[in-house]
Amino acid sequence: MQSNIEVFKERNAWLQRTGMNGPTLEIIGAPEEKASGAAARELSAGLTRLGFCGPQAGKIILDVDKTLPEEGYRIGGGKISGGSDNGLLYGAFAFLRELAQGKEPFEIKEESAPKARFRVLNHWDSVSGKVERGYSGNSLFFKDSKLCFDESEIIDYARLIASVGINAICLNNVNVPPDAARLIFPESIEKLKSLAAIFRQFGIRVAVSVAFDSPVIDGLDTADPLDEAVSLWWNERASELYRNIPDFAGFVVKADSEFRGGPAALGRTQADGANMLARALAPHGGTVFWRCFIYDCLQDWRDQSIDRPKAPYELFMPQDGMFDENVVLQIKHGPVDFQVREPNSPLLGAMKHTAQGLELQITQEYTGQQIDLYCLPVQWEEILAFPEASGGELRSIIGSKITTIAGVANCGKSSNWTGHALAQLNLYGFGRMAWDPSLSAREVAGEWARLTFGEPWERVRDLCLKSREAYEKYTTPLALGWMVNIHHHYGPSPEGYEFMKWGSYHRASHSALGVDRTSKGTGLTKQYNGKLAETLDDMDACPEELLLFFHRVPFNYRLKSGKTLLQRLYDDHFEGAEMVEGFISEWQALKSQLAPEVFESVSKKLALQLENAKEWRDVVNTYFYRLTETPDEAGRKIYV
Amino acid sequence: MQSNIEVFKERNAWLQRTGMNGPTLEIIGAPEEKASGAAARELSAGLTRLGFCGPQAGKIILDVDKTLPEEGYRIGGGKISGGSDNGLLYGAFAFLRELAQGKEPFEIKEESAPKARFRVLNHWDSVSGKVERGYSGNSLFFKDSKLCFDESEIIDYARLIASVGINAICLNNVNVPPDAARLIFPESIEKLKSLAAIFRQFGIRVAVSVAFDSPVIDGLDTADPLDEAVSLWWNERASELYRNIPDFAGFVVKADSEFRGGPAALGRTQADGANMLARALAPHGGTVFWRCFIYDCLQDWRDQSIDRPKAPYELFMPQDGMFDENVVLQIKHGPVDFQVREPNSPLLGAMKHTAQGLELQITQEYTGQQIDLYCLPVQWEEILAFPEASGGELRSIIGSKITTIAGVANCGKSSNWTGHALAQLNLYGFGRMAWDPSLSAREVAGEWARLTFGEPWERVRDLCLKSREAYEKYTTPLALGWMVNIHHHYGPSPEGYEFMKWGSYHRASHSALGVDRTSKGTGLTKQYNGKLAETLDDMDACPEELLLFFHRVPFNYRLKSGKTLLQRLYDDHFEGAEMVEGFISEWQALKSQLAPEVFESVSKKLALQLENAKEWRDVVNTYFYRLTETPDEAGRKIYV
Repeated sequence: MQSNIEVFKERNAWLQRTGMNGPTLEIIGAPEEKASGAAARELSAGLTRLGFCGPQAGKIILDVDKTLPEEGYRIGGGKISGGSDNGLLYGAFAFLRELAQGKEPFEIKEESAPKARFRVLNHWDSVSGKVERGYSGNSLFFKDSKLCFDESEIIDYARLIASVGINAICLNNVNVPPDAARLIFPESIEKLKSLAAIFRQFGIRVAVSVAFDSPVIDGLDTADPLDEAVSLWWNERASELYRNIPDFAGFVVKADSEFRGGPAALGRTQADGANMLARALAPHGGTVFWRCFIYDCLQDWRDQSIDRPKAPYELFMPQDGMFDENVVLQIKHGPVDFQVREPNSPLLGAMKHTAQGLELQITQEYTGQQIDLYCLPVQWEEILAFPEASGGELRSIIGSKITTIAGVANCGKSSNWTGHALAQLNLYGFGRMAWDPSLSAREVAGEWARLTFGEPWERVRDLCLKSREAYEKYTTPLALGWMVNIHHHYGPSPEGYEFMKWGSYHRASHSALGVDRTSKGTGLTKQYNGKLAETLDDMDACPEELLLFFHRVPFNYRLKSGKTLLQRLYDDHFEGAEMVEGFISEWQALKSQLAPEVFESVSKKLALQLENAKEWRDVVNTYFYRLTETPDEAGRKIYV
Repeated sequence: MQSNIEVFKERNAWLQRTGMNGPTLEIIGAPEEKASGAAARELSAGLTRLGFCGPQAGKIILDVDKTLPEEGYRIGGGKISGGSDNGLLYGAFAFLRELAQGKEPFEIKEESAPKARFRVLNHWDSVSGKVERGYSGNSLFFKDSKLCFDESEIIDYARLIASVGINAICLNNVNVPPDAARLIFPESIEKLKSLAAIFRQFGIRVAVSVAFDSPVIDGLDTADPLDEAVSLWWNERASELYRNIPDFAGFVVKADSEFRGGPAALGRTQADGANMLARALAPHGGTVFWRCFIYDCLQDWRDQSIDRPKAPYELFMPQDGMFDENVVLQIKHGPVDFQVREPNSPLLGAMKHTAQGLELQITQEYTGQQIDLYCLPVQWEEILAFPEASGGELRSIIGSKITTIAGVANCGKSSNWTGHALAQLNLYGFGRMAWDPSLSAREVAGEWARLTFGEPWERVRDLCLKSREAYEKYTTPLALGWMVNIHHHYGPSPEGYEFMKWGSYHRASHSALGVDRTSKGTGLTKQYNGKLAETLDDMDACPEELLLFFHRVPFNYRLKSGKTLLQRLYDDHFEGAEMVEGFISEWQALKSQLAPEVFESVSKKLALQLENAKEWRDVVNTYFYRLTETPDEAGRKIYV
């Protein structure tokens, strides 16, 4: 058993070396206090712990400068200025971050402000205490159908996420059964209020996921958004919430999706539904985060007229301009569902008159489930550089068309928050890249590794940076996707989803693989704009890493390397598994420089990852071998 | 809603027309009363209801004749003689069955005695109240981790199963978690005793499934069968059980199987484990039903040195002769797991010095789940005719080597017992064929249909008799098996189990299909004796319906019909689905002759079955088409 102190240290991870750990309760103020209080206390405690406790440290000044962007800060000459209380807190954290990386207090010069207005964690916590797609233990917020939390743990968590710039958090799963719908009913308000008070001190606003059918759950006959009684019901709920939580962030909504109720089921538009909620929140300054993850999840696999990735664009584009100002349409980064490799959603940036949110997944549902190492910032960097609808990089419209970056959270009661110690990088990286989308994966991984591990940081960083490539190779390269075991989504099952109703098919046959989504096929490419549409439409021009997303490709098709598609698939699977063997050696070499618990826990995960990588390699290679009966050119072992 | 009276009528099914329905409580006696009491009451009530209420009826005499086989009976000249109390009851039921089929009381002449000593229903009921592989509602016996039953429902059920000759029942699932293990702990005995008292009046002895690890659950350090404290623990449990239930049947045991504890896990033999339990039961006349369903359920699919169907024979044959007399080795009919078509287990009849039990599955796990119509007696007739180890038909050793016929039960709280009204045939047929293994499926289906439906019985019988052929065709013909959805086992998933740890693979590739289990392959054929082994070993001689169980067959292999394997697979799938369309027409034509509730409920099931049949047809045909890229010769629709 680890002692409590060790657990505490490990949980705080990158906060350790920034001086931001230490007893938590000393940095919490009165319930209604603002983030500036935390800023001062964090700064003072951090300086002390980093050893700057003399008169020099006393000279660091915190002040509010209203000429700065609201959440921005400026550091220089021993002064930290913030555009607001939150700005001050972010300035204090940034200052400590630089100090902990070796800078002298009076040399630090930095000015920064976030692009996105909302940098949100979406927890998929069930009120039962379980976490959907959670690999980090039970919920921090819920137990036995009720809000139930450990105050000091919440303080730890709030500090952790505030230190990387998160300013909002949605507490519960977007799938909202009746017991979770009651989170906004009067019985839950007191507890919600006290939880929000903790987060408030770290500049974090609380949101909840609501069931569109909530009025019905409460006894009304309908949830029709055009029904007056329904609007009234929501107005009353909003008023009560804001009476108790004046900075309540708003509602996250999954409607008309995967068996959830919604306006379409009642013959109304998405805008009807979202606006009705938005109007309840608007007088109080709240926002509706309306998810665009809507598709036919009862598709007949035989019906090739439907193509799942086309669904969000088809549904939402015609409604552009119909949404109220305080509605954010929250769009998954890819048109399908958080696969290892997808093109960006064509909807991102396409709507000209609607605030948009970019939804990322920090929890590793399809990307290794916090068993396999997978550095998500590498993928996010690509997503942020992918062309948005008008041709620029996606990152160029963050702060304009895109006002929100939301990440599905990866934290729980696990003793190191994330189950896998190195998965903390994904949380750190999400916060930092949501703050500053121009940061590279290399930069954020470097920062995180240095703050967390000190000395061997470059080698930890480099190991993490390679992990996405390895995972992609041994699972489903070339944006093939979906060869996972059904339901739990860990490990290979090449035809697991092939005949199901979820709309995710690859249609592999003896001679070819993939779905033709070009203008000659399902036409998905036509949802992209201009030159990109042309590029994606052409098998030879399409970026190779996206080839199998857009094209049905013969196994004997020659890639740019001269390899056939089949040989590339074999090679990638062998190479991916070999890379994991390399990770194990590299990690072993770090043993003497790491805390024993961290070394051991990651070593165990890597051993499991290698098993998984070999299983993927062998299953997928055997699958393609059986289909094609064409052997590996290098004669490596493929089971028959 | 059906009225209670209608529910009652439907539940009693074939008892209706035998005059054996009517208020139940009048035919139950004092708790310790024997089956002869029920015999007299059934006879009197039945005669009255069938209209034989004058002086003629009064002349039917019941008497015990010890010269008859113990459970046998003789009917003739207005007299029913039984070799025992049970014999009398079976005689009374047989007499009423003949009357209800139109015979005159004094013309009935029949002498019969069962071959198998134990004709057992194995309920897979969880103490939670759910039923594993149950498609007929919740458990009749359990709720919320406790025995909990409706006395009049149990009387109905006991009459129903006694009327077809069942003489023992195991109440709970063979998977025994700790809460179910407590069924033989002191706290449960009172309830168990009162349940057993009801069954006793119908000649039925109660058994329970026990956890081999029960002593550990009760606080002992070990469950080692050679440990004296362990034996003592079981002896005490047995003594207490028999003090309260003098005719307790014994224990059913699933040990060392699918994550259950057992002697092998403790370094002991199966005989060590079974005999230890047998010695606890022997002084009281109890029996251990020790299941042989043991195999490596964590197999690596890459390891082709293991072949699951070989496992039971390999494990148990070397221990022949080591088991005590009151141990019955209970063997699943096929070497794998209740598939639509399997050869018989080579273990059946192979052991010369060990009592054996034949395990059948009445609940339709892999055979349509009481949605699809499936007449199991058709399959059982084949199983009973399949050569046993010394060459004769399996049925020829029932009563000698095989002392027990056990069937996994298909009943629950469903308003018609079995979920699907026509699935009652499977329960009826099980009882009748367990009593008399020489009965044909046509005979038992005819009896049942006549007793249940009267007038249109021949057409109902013929419809049922065709159902197995249809199901086999549209799912997995030629003993291919295992193309089901994982876990729940309904509907197609051609590669669902292909890379899992359960050991059930077909290894389909572009050119061939199936596992070579011949002497040149895994050697399963060598477990069969003499001529049969030779026949099975030869692809051209092997019975065609078993071809894909024993052979890896090229898709272009010519079958006896001249068709290629592939074309046969296509044809069967089209034909199977067409047969279901025929069933619907045939059932529609019976509308005017059937009770409306029965007509409607079966019509709904048939509509679902047609959906399922089409799904199977299309998924499997598409799967083989994609693999082979060879079209259907008849040009029918195969999705690509």
